[in-house]
Amino acid sequence: MEPVNIGLLGLGTVGGGVVTVLTGNASEIARRAGREIVIAKAAARDYDPTRISGLEHIGHIGNDAFAVVDDPSIDIVIELIGGDSPARELVLKAIANGKHVVTANKALIAKHGNEIFAAAQQHGVTVAFEAAVAGGIPIIKALREGLAANHIEWIAGIINGTGNFILTAMRDQGQPFAEALAEAQALGYAEADPTFDVEGIDAAHKLTILGSLAFGIPLQFDKTITEGIAAIDPQDVAYAEELGYRIKHLGMARRTEAGIELRVHPTLIPERRLLANVDGVMNAVLIKGDVVGPTLYYGAGAGALPTASAVVADVVDITRALTTDPTNRVPHLAFQPTELQDTPVLPLDQVQTAYYLRLSALDQPGVMASIAGLLADEKISIEAIKQKEPLAGETHVTLIMLTHQIIEENMNRAIAQIEALDAVQGPVTRIRMEQLG
Amino acid sequence: MEPVNIGLLGLGTVGGGVVTVLTGNASEIARRAGREIVIAKAAARDYDPTRISGLEHIGHIGNDAFAVVDDPSIDIVIELIGGDSPARELVLKAIANGKHVVTANKALIAKHGNEIFAAAQQHGVTVAFEAAVAGGIPIIKALREGLAANHIEWIAGIINGTGNFILTAMRDQGQPFAEALAEAQALGYAEADPTFDVEGIDAAHKLTILGSLAFGIPLQFDKTITEGIAAIDPQDVAYAEELGYRIKHLGMARRTEAGIELRVHPTLIPERRLLANVDGVMNAVLIKGDVVGPTLYYGAGAGALPTASAVVADVVDITRALTTDPTNRVPHLAFQPTELQDTPVLPLDQVQTAYYLRLSALDQPGVMASIAGLLADEKISIEAIKQKEPLAGETHVTLIMLTHQIIEENMNRAIAQIEALDAVQGPVTRIRMEQLG
Repeated sequence: MEPVNIGLLGLGTVGGGVVTVLTGNASEIARRAGREIVIAKAAARDYDPTRISGLEHIGHIGNDAFAVVDDPSIDIVIELIGGDSPARELVLKAIANGKHVVTANKALIAKHGNEIFAAAQQHGVTVAFEAAVAGGIPIIKALREGLAANHIEWIAGIINGTGNFILTAMRDQGQPFAEALAEAQALGYAEADPTFDVEGIDAAHKLTILGSLAFGIPLQFDKTITEGIAAIDPQDVAYAEELGYRIKHLGMARRTEAGIELRVHPTLIPERRLLANVDGVMNAVLIKGDVVGPTLYYGAGAGALPTASAVVADVVDITRALTTDPTNRVPHLAFQPTELQDTPVLPLDQVQTAYYLRLSALDQPGVMASIAGLLADEKISIEAIKQKEPLAGETHVTLIMLTHQIIEENMNRAIAQIEALDAVQGPVTRIRMEQLG
Repeated sequence: MEPVNIGLLGLGTVGGGVVTVLTGNASEIARRAGREIVIAKAAARDYDPTRISGLEHIGHIGNDAFAVVDDPSIDIVIELIGGDSPARELVLKAIANGKHVVTANKALIAKHGNEIFAAAQQHGVTVAFEAAVAGGIPIIKALREGLAANHIEWIAGIINGTGNFILTAMRDQGQPFAEALAEAQALGYAEADPTFDVEGIDAAHKLTILGSLAFGIPLQFDKTITEGIAAIDPQDVAYAEELGYRIKHLGMARRTEAGIELRVHPTLIPERRLLANVDGVMNAVLIKGDVVGPTLYYGAGAGALPTASAVVADVVDITRALTTDPTNRVPHLAFQPTELQDTPVLPLDQVQTAYYLRLSALDQPGVMASIAGLLADEKISIEAIKQKEPLAGETHVTLIMLTHQIIEENMNRAIAQIEALDAVQGPVTRIRMEQLG
C-alpha cells in the first residue's frame, strides 16, 4: 500500500520528538499501522537540527506552514506549533482541504475545539488530540472508547507535572513554594514564566477536555474554575500529612444533580489513595464510572518523547481507519455531535466539596464553641478538629478543621463570620478536600 | 439508524452484568455509539431471572446458542459461556456467518485465538476481547492502540484478583496461604476449586494475550511459564517487607536479546512502586514502552459489572465501525496479521531475573564464604545478605540473600550446589525479584 504522508508543523521539543519516534520506530509502527508513515513535509520558523534525530528522513523542510497544509500530497497534518494563532487557522485550513489533523495543542482544543470539531465533522475528517491531555497516557482513548459503557460520575486528575513536582518537593523537603518552583525551573520542569502551570491554566485546558469527553457537553474553558498553588503554605502541607492527607493540584470534573463541576485547585486527598502517591512530574487520572468503578491511568504527562508517543498513536489510529466511512468514526467528544447536552457547568459558589480550614484563634474558653456554632449555622459538619498547642507566651493557637461536604457559598458565609470574630486573628486558610472513595 | 442487534450467549455472572449495563445505561451508550444497541436474542442453559435486571428488554431468551449464532438478524454475538467447547465452535460459527464477536473468554483467546483471528480476518469481521484481560481496565485498547508508537520493552501485571487478595491478606494479617485462601473463598473472591487462580493458569491466559499484543508474536499459551502462589510462606512475606519489597503474583512479559519471556510467578517488587500498592482484588498492569516510558493502568479485574463494562465498550467500538472497510480495522493482535514474527519464547531455564533466596545454614565461620563462592562460580552477584540471629540453643541461622539478574539455569546449578553443602539444612527457597525500574 502507498505510504501515508505526514505534514508536520513545528519542530520544537514535541515536533523533534515526533520526528525521532516516527523515524526511529518506523518499522514497528508500520507493522502495526499496516502502511508506512513518512514525514513528507515539515514547516518550522526555526529549529535546532543538531538536536533532532531523523531529520534526514523528512522529504522537505520549509518555513511556510500554510504551504504544507495546502499541499495535496499530504494526508495527515500534525500541528505542534502551540498557542491560538496561527494554529487555529492552520488546523481549520487543513480540515477545509480534507486532511486529518493530529494536535497536542490543549489550549487550541479547550478554547476552539467546538468550532474545529464542527468543521471536521462537516468535511468528514478526524481531529485527534490524545497528546493534549496527560502526555503519553492514552487517557482520551480510555475515556472515549474504553469506558464507553459507563455513566461517568467523576474524574480526578494530576494533569500538570510542573505543579506536581513543586508540591512533591514541598512535602518531601519541606520547601516553601518559591524555593520548590526555583528547583523546578533549574531542572527544566518549569518555564521561566511559570504562570500557565502554577496558576492552573494548563490543567484547566486539560480538565475542560476531559469534562466534555466524560459528560457529553460542549467544551467550556471559560467556565472551568481555576486556582493555582502559589498560595500553598508549607505548614498546610505538614498539617495535611499529620491528618493522613496529601495536597495535590487536582483537576476535578464531577456530575451532580445541580450540574457539572469543572475545577482545578489544590486539594487534600487521603494518602492511601494511589493518586496521592503519584509524585514528581508524573501524571495520573482517576475516573469513576458507574459500572466499572474506579480506574486509574498513570504515566509521563509531558516531555518530547512521551508526548510524541501520543501524537504518533493518533497518527496510527487515523492510518488504520483511513478508508473508513466518515460517519462511522469515534466521535471527537466521545458522544455523537448531535447528542451533546447543555447541562449547566456550575459556578464556583455552587460547587460542593469538603474543606480543610486553618485559623489562628485566642486560646480562651468559648472560642471553639463560637466557631463550631457559625459552621453549624451554615449546615457545615465538622469531621475532625485539631488544636496545635501554643508555644509558651503565645496567646493564639492554630486550629485545623476538616469538614464534610458543603456548597461553597455556605462555606464563604461561614468563613466571613468566623473571620469577623474578635477572638480570631487574620484570615482563615481553606483548601478543598476530596475523599475520592 | 437501525438498532444494532446483539445475540447474547450465556446469562451467568458476566452475562447478567452485560444485560444490566446495556439496558440500564442504554441511552448514554446510544449517545456515544450513534445507534441503539438491543439484545435481540439470548441463549442460556439456565439462569436466575431474579438476579438479573433488564431481562425484560431482551427480545427472546432460549437455550439454543447455535440458533442465536445462526440467526440472520443478529449483528454482534457476545460469547460469555466460557471454557473451550462449545465456545470455540460457537465463535467460529458466528464468524463464518459474518457476525462480529465480543468475548470475555481468556482461555478461548489464549488457546484458540490464532485460529479464531485467522477466521475473522478471512470473513472480514472483528473478534473483540477487551474483557479477557484485567476485567474493566481498557488494557487491550491501551496496548494495541494507545501505545502503538512504542517498541514495548516489558509488561508487569497483577492480573488475577484472587491471587492478589490472598497475598494482600497474607501481608496485612500475617495469615498463612491456606487461611487467606479460605477467607477469599468465604468472601466469594475464590472458587471452591481455586486451581485456576492460585496456580496461575488464569493469569497465564491473560499474560499470553498481553505478550502477543506487545511483541507481535502469535499466541503461545503452551510456552507461558506458570507458577502459583500456594508455596509462599508467611515468613518470606515478612522478610520481603523488612527488605523493602512486597510479594505479588506477577505476570511478566519481556523482550530480551535472546527472545521473549512470558512468565507468571510470585515476585518481589520494591514497595515504593505503585504496582506494589495495588491491594486486594484490584488489578493493575505496568507497561514499559521505549518512547512513553512506564505507564500504569489500574482497576477492577473481575466482577459482573466491571467485566460487562469492557464487553459493552467492545460492542460500542464495533458499532462505531460497523460500516468500516474490513481491511482497515485495528488488527486483532495489534500488529497486521502478515507482520507477526516468530521470535522465540524462552524456556524457563533461559529466563533472566533477580532472586530472593532463603536458606538455613549452620552458624559457623566459613559457611557464608562457601555459599558466596558457589554463587560467584555461576556469575551470580549478591545485592544484599541478611542473617537472622539464631534463637538461643539453635545451631542454624536463616540467611536471606538478594541477587542481581542471572539466567535461571545458572541459578539452578548454584542452588543444587548450595543444597549439597553439609552446612546447609533443607532446600533453598527462591522467589524471583523484579525492580520494574
